[in-house]
Amino acid sequence: MNFEIAERLQGVHGSMIRELFKLGADPNMISFGGGNPAAETFPTAEIHEIAERVLRENPVSVLQYGLSEGYTPLRETMKAYLAKTEGFDFEKNELYIVSGGQQCADLTTKALVNAGDVVLTEDPAFVGCLNTFRSYGAKLVGVPMQADGMDLEALERQLAAHPDAKLLYTIPSFQNPTGVTTSLEKRKKIYELACRYDVAILEDNPYGELRFAGEAVPTLKSMDTESRVIYAGSFSKVMAPAFRLGFLVFDKSLAPTMSVAKQCTDVHSNVLFQYICNEYMQHCDYAGHIKAARACYAQKCRRMLRGMKEHFHPAVTFGQPEGGLFVMAFLPDGMDSYPFVREAIARGVLCVPAVAFSPDESAVCSGFRLNYSTPTDAQIDEGVRRLGALTWEWIENHKKG
Amino acid sequence: MNFEIAERLQGVHGSMIRELFKLGADPNMISFGGGNPAAETFPTAEIHEIAERVLRENPVSVLQYGLSEGYTPLRETMKAYLAKTEGFDFEKNELYIVSGGQQCADLTTKALVNAGDVVLTEDPAFVGCLNTFRSYGAKLVGVPMQADGMDLEALERQLAAHPDAKLLYTIPSFQNPTGVTTSLEKRKKIYELACRYDVAILEDNPYGELRFAGEAVPTLKSMDTESRVIYAGSFSKVMAPAFRLGFLVFDKSLAPTMSVAKQCTDVHSNVLFQYICNEYMQHCDYAGHIKAARACYAQKCRRMLRGMKEHFHPAVTFGQPEGGLFVMAFLPDGMDSYPFVREAIARGVLCVPAVAFSPDESAVCSGFRLNYSTPTDAQIDEGVRRLGALTWEWIENHKKG
Repeated sequence: MNFEIAERLQGVHGSMIRELFKLGADPNMISFGGGNPAAETFPTAEIHEIAERVLRENPVSVLQYGLSEGYTPLRETMKAYLAKTEGFDFEKNELYIVSGGQQCADLTTKALVNAGDVVLTEDPAFVGCLNTFRSYGAKLVGVPMQADGMDLEALERQLAAHPDAKLLYTIPSFQNPTGVTTSLEKRKKIYELACRYDVAILEDNPYGELRFAGEAVPTLKSMDTESRVIYAGSFSKVMAPAFRLGFLVFDKSLAPTMSVAKQCTDVHSNVLFQYICNEYMQHCDYAGHIKAARACYAQKCRRMLRGMKEHFHPAVTFGQPEGGLFVMAFLPDGMDSYPFVREAIARGVLCVPAVAFSPDESAVCSGFRLNYSTPTDAQIDEGVRRLGALTWEWIENHKKG
Repeated sequence: MNFEIAERLQGVHGSMIRELFKLGADPNMISFGGGNPAAETFPTAEIHEIAERVLRENPVSVLQYGLSEGYTPLRETMKAYLAKTEGFDFEKNELYIVSGGQQCADLTTKALVNAGDVVLTEDPAFVGCLNTFRSYGAKLVGVPMQADGMDLEALERQLAAHPDAKLLYTIPSFQNPTGVTTSLEKRKKIYELACRYDVAILEDNPYGELRFAGEAVPTLKSMDTESRVIYAGSFSKVMAPAFRLGFLVFDKSLAPTMSVAKQCTDVHSNVLFQYICNEYMQHCDYAGHIKAARACYAQKCRRMLRGMKEHFHPAVTFGQPEGGLFVMAFLPDGMDSYPFVREAIARGVLCVPAVAFSPDESAVCSGFRLNYSTPTDAQIDEGVRRLGALTWEWIENHKKG
């Protein structure tokens, strides 16, 4: 049989990162390519203990079908936590447990975006969500990222040009792929613009807990007097990715739609890990755990930045992440980073060219994303050294012509 | 903010069953309403042992990000198992691990069905998948179920009337909600018709292992010389539902599309439970486990049928399931089962009216679905007794006019 692929997926290619991820499995490759959290931060002892106990004492409670909206005690725990730490208003909002941060984007798009609708997004942006938007036939419109968040003039121009835009997608804290944190001033202005142009915001915050420098900046959701922010959280970076758990916070009026969307997609999320998250948040030292994770990432980030400063050609620029897993470096003069990254891979160092994160897949981008959370210290040192040598060769050769 | 719900979800209501499931949580309610497998069949001791061991010895291997296509050893195990037991051809086909049987339908529809496309389906059919089709804007066309499977004349008529139909959805073994098993003769004819009218088949087989009477009938996929059958399997009924794991078998040409669809949806399925499934299939007594589960369901089904025969008004008809979790009973003379079920719930017995499973939600249906896998023996006896008394009252009152 010759299958005809549905239109919604005809333009969507496999994530370059997921494909690179397979390369990264080569034990000889130094991988700065993935987005994996540092495995040493997983609270494995507690996960083992909680899982062992509940599977011994009350296995059926975590093995039978559960509710589409999520495990009720975990929903209550997360509401209390987010009300306290972020000031979220759960009189107006609802929280569902979903199957990871990716499903937050999937359910939100399913619920709100028709084929042909415009989704505004940071450029570059997390490609997993760009592909989710594409998979519903959304038209992506990029807004360039600057060192402190989106270019607001470009944002307003695009909002004016696309008055029916359905969604504005942003990762305001420690953005993937740039590592940029949107300033408080810009957050306020972004929220104002969203109100003025009546567009919903999808605030994706998987790294929010992983701040290791600078001052905390309030989430967009915490400013959300109009209930127009849909907030996506994840347990992937604070517990473990293979839990496949996240949480979605949204205006209560959307609850029936989100329930249906969840039922149609995977019925409910796995219960054992919801139970583990709840027990952990309730009875273990979550604050201490986050503090240790932050220290781990701070050290790794510092080490990578130090190496980059030492080894990279001075024409290569990069920012100073205040949290999260990534830093993006830029080749000078708009040089295309794609062939550079191919050569880096040939030399045993994996990183990701910024074009992989562009709403416009034919763009020429000069950035390349480096992940510092997964490699060991020795890998960071050696990988950055090799990349640095390549930047010199590449840029000097380019000058020659 | 006033959110505008995307068109694809505007016509989709929450599954009546998922809503009834909440009622069923009332401890005083005798529930024949759910679709839960019998908890006593879960291999809890082995699940505990395998989880405890891997989380102690090698936790990161089951907690870090995994592959979108699934945990490689489990994919290999399932391919070998299905090649052996069902004769599937993995030269031509691929197998991915997905997040439950529901996601099999979600990914298949995402990959193949455009908004406005026709999906042919048994009538009644599993409402979870009907809602998935609806959530992609598919137009549902029902083919009435008979005691041995779809009405083939109606199927051919609808295939001729809808030459561009994209998918034919069927549960050939122990169908949800009717309990009907499609005969071998009808399976062959359904496959022939699908070839003649060039439509893909989604064969949903979550209950296939749970045969407790009659002779095994080959799957449609096992007859699939043209690779037009997409086969959906689930671990929910043979391991445990909250694993949220299933598997999808499809023509290799669809692999890139299915990978993208999976990435866009939830990246990958949870790894610990994939590991447990693989260890269980490899090192535990899977055959003995299935044998015990079959015996459990056989006993429960027999008990329910015996009670129905004894207590139900003789004008109420029902079949004899050869496996699975459900039996459907029918009120006489096309009487609407919806008010009957409401009255049954008022009397403390939960079951589901057939209209909940109809592609046409405004249909008047006489059937009501009973689940025998979840209730205890005492609940089966008492529930059937109460329902039986109600059938007498209802039908005799109806006669009086």
